[in-house]
Amino acid sequence: MEKSSARHSSEPGLGARPKDDPIELALSQVGDRWTFMILREAFFGVRRFDEMLRNTKASPSILTGRLKRMVADGLLDRHPYCERPPRYEYVLTAKGKALYPAIVLLMKWSDDWVAQNAEPTISLIHTVCGHELHPVLKCDKCGKPIAAEDIDWRVG
Amino acid sequence: MEKSSARHSSEPGLGARPKDDPIELALSQVGDRWTFMILREAFFGVRRFDEMLRNTKASPSILTGRLKRMVADGLLDRHPYCERPPRYEYVLTAKGKALYPAIVLLMKWSDDWVAQNAEPTISLIHTVCGHELHPVLKCDKCGKPIAAEDIDWRVG
Repeated sequence: MEKSSARHSSEPGLGARPKDDPIELALSQVGDRWTFMILREAFFGVRRFDEMLRNTKASPSILTGRLKRMVADGLLDRHPYCERPPRYEYVLTAKGKALYPAIVLLMKWSDDWVAQNAEPTISLIHTVCGHELHPVLKCDKCGKPIAAEDIDWRVG
Repeated sequence: MEKSSARHSSEPGLGARPKDDPIELALSQVGDRWTFMILREAFFGVRRFDEMLRNTKASPSILTGRLKRMVADGLLDRHPYCERPPRYEYVLTAKGKALYPAIVLLMKWSDDWVAQNAEPTISLIHTVCGHELHPVLKCDKCGKPIAAEDIDWRVG
């Protein structure tokens, strides 16, 4: 087992990082602006083609292609809701739903760093406790918040 | 203030969602496969052009363009490390580092859902407690883990 520090660029282990690492695998399924925007729509409860088209401003052919790919990748399920003409709804699978925490953190990052001077445009509410959502990523073992400088990694 | 449920596509509030919402803002700076891959390199401690080129398999012109954009967006700082010939290192800013939790969750999602049958190729270690990292997104108010079905949202 090889060990490298995330803080030092001169570590010899870096070159040994495998090509199919998890970020690259994840990007092969969600590393696309339109896919992310469709996921955002799905998390907001949007299920139908026309509404996705209106909200994402994608072209019909882009949206059709991305939805097909996302169904094939198991992020969305396609259900018929009308027989004549045939119409389908797109619903998040468990795999798609599991992306929610990552999307939430991306929203939080955007609020903190990109839209700093703007009024927050969307508030998320945690219905479990009724408070506005302040998500924080924690270590499941020690319960401490996770920061980049506290992480090492191993290839093995 | 308008309120909508994330679980129902028929909510009238959906159409009122602002165009410059946080996900769209975030995507304008990181919604690109190459940008994500460069961030991954930076989190792994890679700072130099040649090493990024080797690890990302980007073309030199793509890498040059993305690095320039990321410096302009405040994700990376550029520091000289050699005068003749002029050479620069790219180091994460505080804004860039703040993306780390979102990237970690994307890795975790990939391990859980994309690379299910493969052996995990990279293990992250939380140096604060010494355990392998099992990150979990929690509500800072009630301490409960966050799931998509427990979130409502408001535009306002």
